[in-house]
Amino acid sequence: MEKVSVDELKNYLGKEVQLHGWVYNTRSSGKISFLLFRDGTGIVQAILYHPDHREELVKRFEELNQETSIVLVGKVREDKRSPLGIELDIVDFNIISKSIDYPISPKEHGVDFLQSNRHLWLRSKKQSSIMRIRSDVVFFAREFFNNRKFLCIDAPIFTPSACEGTTTLFEVDYFNDKKVYLSQSGQLYMEAAALAYGKVYCFGPAFRAEKSKTRRHLTEFWQIEPEVAFFDIDDDMELAEDLVIYLVQKILERRTDDLKILERDIKPLENIKKPFYRITYEDAIKILNKKGIEIKFGDDFGAPDEAAISFEFDRPVFVHRYPTQIKAFYMKKDKDREDLALGFDMIAGEGYGETIGGGQREDDYDTLLKRINENNLPVENFKWYLDLRKYGSVPHSGFGLGIERFVQWITKTQHIREVIPFARTLDRTEP
Amino acid sequence: MEKVSVDELKNYLGKEVQLHGWVYNTRSSGKISFLLFRDGTGIVQAILYHPDHREELVKRFEELNQETSIVLVGKVREDKRSPLGIELDIVDFNIISKSIDYPISPKEHGVDFLQSNRHLWLRSKKQSSIMRIRSDVVFFAREFFNNRKFLCIDAPIFTPSACEGTTTLFEVDYFNDKKVYLSQSGQLYMEAAALAYGKVYCFGPAFRAEKSKTRRHLTEFWQIEPEVAFFDIDDDMELAEDLVIYLVQKILERRTDDLKILERDIKPLENIKKPFYRITYEDAIKILNKKGIEIKFGDDFGAPDEAAISFEFDRPVFVHRYPTQIKAFYMKKDKDREDLALGFDMIAGEGYGETIGGGQREDDYDTLLKRINENNLPVENFKWYLDLRKYGSVPHSGFGLGIERFVQWITKTQHIREVIPFARTLDRTEP
Repeated sequence: MEKVSVDELKNYLGKEVQLHGWVYNTRSSGKISFLLFRDGTGIVQAILYHPDHREELVKRFEELNQETSIVLVGKVREDKRSPLGIELDIVDFNIISKSIDYPISPKEHGVDFLQSNRHLWLRSKKQSSIMRIRSDVVFFAREFFNNRKFLCIDAPIFTPSACEGTTTLFEVDYFNDKKVYLSQSGQLYMEAAALAYGKVYCFGPAFRAEKSKTRRHLTEFWQIEPEVAFFDIDDDMELAEDLVIYLVQKILERRTDDLKILERDIKPLENIKKPFYRITYEDAIKILNKKGIEIKFGDDFGAPDEAAISFEFDRPVFVHRYPTQIKAFYMKKDKDREDLALGFDMIAGEGYGETIGGGQREDDYDTLLKRINENNLPVENFKWYLDLRKYGSVPHSGFGLGIERFVQWITKTQHIREVIPFARTLDRTEP
Repeated sequence: MEKVSVDELKNYLGKEVQLHGWVYNTRSSGKISFLLFRDGTGIVQAILYHPDHREELVKRFEELNQETSIVLVGKVREDKRSPLGIELDIVDFNIISKSIDYPISPKEHGVDFLQSNRHLWLRSKKQSSIMRIRSDVVFFAREFFNNRKFLCIDAPIFTPSACEGTTTLFEVDYFNDKKVYLSQSGQLYMEAAALAYGKVYCFGPAFRAEKSKTRRHLTEFWQIEPEVAFFDIDDDMELAEDLVIYLVQKILERRTDDLKILERDIKPLENIKKPFYRITYEDAIKILNKKGIEIKFGDDFGAPDEAAISFEFDRPVFVHRYPTQIKAFYMKKDKDREDLALGFDMIAGEGYGETIGGGQREDDYDTLLKRINENNLPVENFKWYLDLRKYGSVPHSGFGLGIERFVQWITKTQHIREVIPFARTLDRTEP
């Protein structure tokens, strides 16, 4: 008999198949028992009509608890009412291992309790849908860049110094009383790699020791950071736009069932097409002022400002050319406006804020050195970074996309801790 | 005029094209100047035959130094002698940015000097070939698992405690005087994920605070770790075999030029086919004894032992069923031989040692608890891990493949520091 998974069942109509997995739930009503069976690829309903079976099997059904592991044999039958379009008639089953007093019941649980039981909570329906979508985002982001012949160049996690100050860095005891820091971004290393290989990206965990307890902060998160030689800010925004469209299309194609489980309205996602809106920082200030928000040139946007901007547009919007003083030292200045940096943020729709940040990098040695000094950064730590402007400097640009913020938006999940398998926050480092 | 990259040139025979990149080298001989031009996708030779050009261009050629960035216009011509099968006739070029006294010349440099200039060393021919192969290994390993419908479930890097003792763990200052450790392996988390989703993998950096200064040790390395529910040790070895074959085939198909540059004999790679050899630990002891190596049941293999075993076989060999006492607490015991653990190592060919380690996990609650106590591990830290045996336990297996050791083998690179973009070792955390 063929061993199949739940997501393949629709190809086995009328056939008897074997499945390996767990009991999601059971209930009985008169002469019929219902089993919700999960195997990680989906959940299917299986029916045991008592008069059709020997008494022993009906009795054994009563031993099934939530999360009992079983081998199930069933016959696949069409059922228009079910979400999968099919149901199983139980032929037989064997219990592999019992599950007594499984702590997560269908009733509501507190967040802390669920987080403490994350190793089990992951088995729940909504969490499974989020994780499937996350897995696709991670894979297809890489595929997008591989298709365009980018090289994956892993940036180091141990870094000798901070990119932009040490206040939000995690310190690690290295050998012989040396201290190193956990990377917040691979960007500087990607610049070195772009000047070696043209088109590169890194994709790994990043760490931020921020004492923030918001719905959008993790101390450990994943980001993908492409960097391209001979790219200006416009090329860069187009690349970001193409990536977002590619990912959203993949999720819409492959994960409709999961989006349905998450009750995600897919209309705003279907509307994510070229071109995204592009407005300057100064335009954005005007929009906010018109809405009665007091903000002036030189102020940075907070999360409520970004949300307000996002509601003005029916798809993502790039805000570009921020005041130099509120942006990082490595951003190239606009040649027509010395007070503006060639950086951008992509603000996702539906009230979600910044999901991508990037821009063109300063490629002139003297200007960069001046900026490092103006920012009181230790020049000796940036010697190698300055070298990139000394030996065949070229215009180059890149950006970073935070995977969790992206998945949070696509799945419309309220709290970011649910879109990463094992969230690390200010208060939590277990399990 | 079309902008193309070096690896696309063979599709533009007879055409005039524009390239963006850097000078790899120049030389002149009488009325001909030769330019080796690189753009990250490859190196092409471009010719300037002086009589064909205005004097100014010939003079400008003299300004080209190693790593000068240029925009090059050339006409593609067939040339059987060149490695790419083509050459360029220079039509014009413009210097974007100069490169004076580039520190890495074609002469030999000391290892420490090269490591200190890793941001520039990456531009060298051999390093480029290694990085292209590494990038493919990273991507196609993920593709292999995605094709088989594994979910990517990222394991956390911050972990509350050690899997197997704290002696080789890096400690991080978390908030409020709390300490956390950097993960050495995502395995325990993948076990939780496999019981939720069936087939999963993680792929991220891992950290080991070993004071080893060998050619095979890094403090920060990358590994891919699949874990599958309802898999036994034999299924697991077959999965590892399929993965290795898939990766080697991809590299042989896509990176022949790079393997040539690295002077890698490809015959041993072409021989990597199903089935790999499978021998027991006890067989391996006999082989070693026959070769005059003194080793007895209960001893662990060192690198020289692994090398000796590998030379006995013309393709990778799985050594399985090690003595329980030398293997980790979570390994399942062989039901026919209580003194043996259902673990395996895949020993790569040609003297390279262990590249994959894995096996079947203990799935019985009481047995696992006993093993945790026997190993003097703090039970309270493993409560969540024990839960996996409490609620619907199933047989499951997995393995870990170290990316750097794999790439080191495929490229036959002497020292592991060259197969990762920015190596971190006992003595080095920069640039």
